[in-house]
Amino acid sequence: MTTTDETQAARPAGRPRSARAEKAIIDATLDLIGESTSLGEISIEAIASRAGVGKTTIYRRWSNKEDLLVDALATLKAPLPPLAGRSLREDMIACVEVFLHEACDARARCVMNIAMNEVERHPRLVQRIRQAAIEPRRAVLTGLLQRGIASGDLRADLDVPVALAALIGTVVWYVRGLEPDHGPLQEGIAEQVVDHLLVGLASR
Amino acid sequence: MTTTDETQAARPAGRPRSARAEKAIIDATLDLIGESTSLGEISIEAIASRAGVGKTTIYRRWSNKEDLLVDALATLKAPLPPLAGRSLREDMIACVEVFLHEACDARARCVMNIAMNEVERHPRLVQRIRQAAIEPRRAVLTGLLQRGIASGDLRADLDVPVALAALIGTVVWYVRGLEPDHGPLQEGIAEQVVDHLLVGLASR
Repeated sequence: MTTTDETQAARPAGRPRSARAEKAIIDATLDLIGESTSLGEISIEAIASRAGVGKTTIYRRWSNKEDLLVDALATLKAPLPPLAGRSLREDMIACVEVFLHEACDARARCVMNIAMNEVERHPRLVQRIRQAAIEPRRAVLTGLLQRGIASGDLRADLDVPVALAALIGTVVWYVRGLEPDHGPLQEGIAEQVVDHLLVGLASR
Repeated sequence: MTTTDETQAARPAGRPRSARAEKAIIDATLDLIGESTSLGEISIEAIASRAGVGKTTIYRRWSNKEDLLVDALATLKAPLPPLAGRSLREDMIACVEVFLHEACDARARCVMNIAMNEVERHPRLVQRIRQAAIEPRRAVLTGLLQRGIASGDLRADLDVPVALAALIGTVVWYVRGLEPDHGPLQEGIAEQVVDHLLVGLASR
């Protein structure tokens, strides 16, 4: 591996530079994912140019474009907040707050869009993105729901995949249904969503 | 307007040919939308070539590409089935069946994807797609929910936008959460979704 393409950076060597470069590369990758209409059109050259680093700097950390794309997309999905120790309702609201925030964020939204739309074109990449960014969350939420069933807070015959879809899908669709230039989200909307789902839409 | 580019078709003039051509043009447009990664890369030339018609045939019906895209995308969203005269639960299940079917259909899914992802690139087009394909449905569902409140079937303090998002979003997310090569949908899933939403996830 040469360092000839590094000369333009001319920053001091060492950890801080390395961390800065890594952040610049991830940011550049996410920018290009957001601007591009397909993953196929994104090149290592374009990422290097946008990040202001040489291609060698990228290849020192990621052996190929796919690895870089997976890592970059995984950073968009922050881990869910720690959930244990509060009530089920409060834990659900904390999760819904995270989903609301992400549904309003064009970058974060693109993970699910890619998972859904690029599966025919890039099946292995999509599988890796699902594993890195989506499955860990499903596992956390599934655990929350299963603890709720065990504690008796949730109905004993709960269909966990349906409940999971209701929690995430309602939030995403609520945000999507808003006009493109919607203002700030309605105050208390996370509580409203959770209370509608827990108590049900029907009258009692 | 000339018909010079029509000579290769050499079919008899009149309604049947016109209807056939129109269907071929709409189908070609939808094929290209499905295969393309952005609306910008679709050209009238490519649509004409795929449909096996001349560009003049297209311009005789649609004055520009945007009009054609809006019409083509609107055909993907079938009107909801007539809803009056059954129970609220049955009407909801009928709607959910339609959403389930569409969520499994790559072509139908693309309307919402475009509405969400192309808004910065093509704001006016997205606005027209929303009006043609999305708003009529929201209106039907909103009417169903409002009748449910009026009849006392739904809670009096129902948040209609949240309930709307729950009905559509749960279905879409349920299908999206499945593995890409999922088999046929679980039997009775529309009833399961509606019953979870109506009765609520909490135990009683």
